[in-house]
Amino acid sequence: MPTETSLTDTSVDLASGVTSRRAFLRTASFTAAGAAALAACGKNASASPEHGTAATATTATVKPVETPASIRASADAMDAMHEKGIKSFPAKTAGVGNQLMTPRIEKGVKVFDLTASEIQWEVSPGQMVAAMAYNGQVPGPQIRVREGDRVRINLKNELKQSTAIHMHGVELPNDQDGVPFITQPPVKPGESYTYEFTAPVGNSGSHMYHSHHNAATQVGLGLLGAFIIEPKEPRAIEKVDHDYVLILNDGMHGFTINGKGFPATQPFTAKLGEKVRIRYMNEGMMIHPMHLHGMHMTVIDKDGWAQPQPWKCDTLNIAPGERWDVIVNCNNPGTWAFHCHILGHAESDHGMFGMVTALVVAK
Amino acid sequence: MPTETSLTDTSVDLASGVTSRRAFLRTASFTAAGAAALAACGKNASASPEHGTAATATTATVKPVETPASIRASADAMDAMHEKGIKSFPAKTAGVGNQLMTPRIEKGVKVFDLTASEIQWEVSPGQMVAAMAYNGQVPGPQIRVREGDRVRINLKNELKQSTAIHMHGVELPNDQDGVPFITQPPVKPGESYTYEFTAPVGNSGSHMYHSHHNAATQVGLGLLGAFIIEPKEPRAIEKVDHDYVLILNDGMHGFTINGKGFPATQPFTAKLGEKVRIRYMNEGMMIHPMHLHGMHMTVIDKDGWAQPQPWKCDTLNIAPGERWDVIVNCNNPGTWAFHCHILGHAESDHGMFGMVTALVVAK
Amino acid sequence: MPTETSLTDTSVDLASGVTSRRAFLRTASFTAAGAAALAACGKNASASPEHGTAATATTATVKPVETPASIRASADAMDAMHEKGIKSFPAKTAGVGNQLMTPRIEKGVKVFDLTASEIQWEVSPGQMVAAMAYNGQVPGPQIRVREGDRVRINLKNELKQSTAIHMHGVELPNDQDGVPFITQPPVKPGESYTYEFTAPVGNSGSHMYHSHHNAATQVGLGLLGAFIIEPKEPRAIEKVDHDYVLILNDGMHGFTINGKGFPATQPFTAKLGEKVRIRYMNEGMMIHPMHLHGMHMTVIDKDGWAQPQPWKCDTLNIAPGERWDVIVNCNNPGTWAFHCHILGHAESDHGMFGMVTALVVAK
Repeated sequence: MPTETSLTDTSVDLASGVTSRRAFLRTASFTAAGAAALAACGKNASASPEHGTAATATTATVKPVETPASIRASADAMDAMHEKGIKSFPAKTAGVGNQLMTPRIEKGVKVFDLTASEIQWEVSPGQMVAAMAYNGQVPGPQIRVREGDRVRINLKNELKQSTAIHMHGVELPNDQDGVPFITQPPVKPGESYTYEFTAPVGNSGSHMYHSHHNAATQVGLGLLGAFIIEPKEPRAIEKVDHDYVLILNDGMHGFTINGKGFPATQPFTAKLGEKVRIRYMNEGMMIHPMHLHGMHMTVIDKDGWAQPQPWKCDTLNIAPGERWDVIVNCNNPGTWAFHCHILGHAESDHGMFGMVTALVVAK
Repeated sequence: MPTETSLTDTSVDLASGVTSRRAFLRTASFTAAGAAALAACGKNASASPEHGTAATATTATVKPVETPASIRASADAMDAMHEKGIKSFPAKTAGVGNQLMTPRIEKGVKVFDLTASEIQWEVSPGQMVAAMAYNGQVPGPQIRVREGDRVRINLKNELKQSTAIHMHGVELPNDQDGVPFITQPPVKPGESYTYEFTAPVGNSGSHMYHSHHNAATQVGLGLLGAFIIEPKEPRAIEKVDHDYVLILNDGMHGFTINGKGFPATQPFTAKLGEKVRIRYMNEGMMIHPMHLHGMHMTVIDKDGWAQPQPWKCDTLNIAPGERWDVIVNCNNPGTWAFHCHILGHAESDHGMFGMVTALVVAK
Repeated sequence: MPTETSLTDTSVDLASGVTSRRAFLRTASFTAAGAAALAACGKNASASPEHGTAATATTATVKPVETPASIRASADAMDAMHEKGIKSFPAKTAGVGNQLMTPRIEKGVKVFDLTASEIQWEVSPGQMVAAMAYNGQVPGPQIRVREGDRVRINLKNELKQSTAIHMHGVELPNDQDGVPFITQPPVKPGESYTYEFTAPVGNSGSHMYHSHHNAATQVGLGLLGAFIIEPKEPRAIEKVDHDYVLILNDGMHGFTINGKGFPATQPFTAKLGEKVRIRYMNEGMMIHPMHLHGMHMTVIDKDGWAQPQPWKCDTLNIAPGERWDVIVNCNNPGTWAFHCHILGHAESDHGMFGMVTALVVAK
């Protein structure tokens, strides 16, 4: 903890148009979680190719005296970075995850073919990361079935390591649970494996599928997706105009919503008066308290199970492995910031990044 | 993970009256979060002026044989540090945050003038930190209005960077939401900006105001405060003898409650039989599971919204951006420890620090 | 964040049958805590070929060409480590914590003698760690009393530092609260101290006892245990076939359940159709969202207090200091993985470790 530190050098650095590593690290020290620091480290380094020499120059020379003009220039420089990020939202990147998958029907069975492979994934504009993906998507394709459906999942492993799929939250017969050496052998590179089961009646809601082998790595790199079981008889509160999935992750790809970091995240949209359902799913290793501006959220389900009574909030803490479903009555028009409230997962002095998106309510 | 480590050298170091950095770092490695380690490091260094030379001496020389007397001396040395901290509670420091602000009334509008500036803040006795503050306070002045009140907030920016105020949890028209480049331009150094709105009816409860620009830094440094909307018709359960706000933070200032670390934290007081309301607000980047000794808490509100039914606990997990309101029926007399149960946020081998206070129930 | 990194060298390392420290550290970088950030920063640097001379030297050796055979060998090498861990479960280690303690009865008082001392504890096979323990157990012996019982706890301190016991969650007279310098003097090395109180009627449920002196260290090292107050009149939902305690910790001993890391953790067992109660207690410094495969959990109590209505989930987030009681209706036969869903607390590329166990439902 600092004693008698000064905030001055940050602004001077900014005035000179240089992001000094020292200033940066000070900011980074605010972040609660290691990966936050990481995300920012990578970001910083890649954002300032001229970093090394310029920073040296800054520390080597005497600091200029601050004037109103230099302070304003410093503020303008910082603001320009913030503005640039926001104005580019939603930024185009290659690849879209969480796309709804249409199954083949074979003798009444809904068949989903999933191929796991290593890919390069554009997590935010220009930032390519090594990923593991189902069908080339991070998150993998969104699977939706109905209670009582017969479901078959053909997994093809094109990774360089073994894998397996666990249907997280779905109460299956033990031999379909997807845990190598407990319920099945690992699926070796080049091999295939088939899961087949009936989506359990009474177990509808927001679930997930993901690797359960070397999973800290494989899920961190992208082997995950939404597995949604629709109820035969939806409750009145479930009748919505839009049904959105927000999968949170915080591994090697930084802080992401549906596989992308701001400004490449997808905005969520609705018309004034519409009802939106949001299905939060945390596939990361940290909590993410998601905060929606402008309107509250009504929590209806936890892990696919109805809460005894709906309850309201504006910030909902999603822990790893959890799913929470909420309803938003879109009664307040405008573009509303919507982000993780661990601020180090959402903003640095370079502007917003990571777990930031918007809910746009059109008049 | 260690194999076959020994606890011995800690006690020997303590016996010699020296806190070795090595022993200390081992302890620090328990802490879950990086900042905890940091906070403790700083504390440690400043607490032991004799640290440098003595530590060198310790590692240079052969360790003395332990005897019952040396062990006792070691324990006494540690205990003396613990006792000193507790006996100094509540310790005087310059500056008090979260002071209730009386608005000016202009033609029926409640007007609050907030000036953001850079200050030095005494977070615990003798520990001055660089801060950003509203009206020279960390947290900023407590704002209380009533449902339906017309409210004006005049923000004057005397910082060296741009800023803006977001009313977290208050459902305002979009242009009052306080997010630069989305709902308004940033407020530049030296400039002013006015927010004006009606406190929404039906949206009463515990909310917050804070910077939403470079916020990981600005909120971490102190640009935050309580924004409480009182209901027109309070519920029976809300009729209390004391209404306390506990704002938690964990940025550059270490682990704080209402801007201060133990022993400079404010004790909360009540008489036997009285009812106390506690409004927890987390403005930090980590969870803080707050634990009250001696009496349970009855949770009534989440983010200002009534829970469907009150429920009881003694440890309440507050995530960043969340507010939780609880009632304590003070039926057990005494001075009760009241602290974050992430123990690394509350105690080191030097004694209690950070997120520790007391609820004092007087007979 | 890496740009254009390759996943190849992991498999090459594994193909050579060697567990490289570098590969391991890379995995470790997924973990949520601060040290992870450091490790990962290093990783990023080493991944960029132009980085420095040392890195150049490393990459100067030519990588062997990957072939289907080399990839398979690599996968087999990794899988063998995973299989070995699982096949050894439950692995034998010296020492069992959380053993139910039978009190002596003295004139109607239930008397528990607890001796705190420093021991070596086998946390997983072959891994000895320095610990502080009550009666040589980590966690300490399980204490169970009934509402209204008169209870005496004789603490003998054989540690090299002072200590004290706090009954976490039990609403006692202030002088029995166990906080040195607030409610009692510290208990010095070699000394003894006696607590005596009536288990409060109306305060039944899952509580804990632990050190409240230098507690970040002492609790991290093992001075903790379950303190359960049985109700005079159990609710129908509490009538179960098995009543299991799961104490979570994450200090110097790594990630543990009841003092052991996988594969030395205890499996929990039931017969098909039986009802199991699980009492989660978090004595660590991090959250642990516990995920049960195959069956959901019905949450009944928080910190010993009944929730207004039971509610269902499959992943339950346990924060430090919290206790949560759940019921599992064992209607799905098989061996079910049961683990913390912060995957870095449960699995590395070397296999499962830490906070992993199983619920075995026998036909």
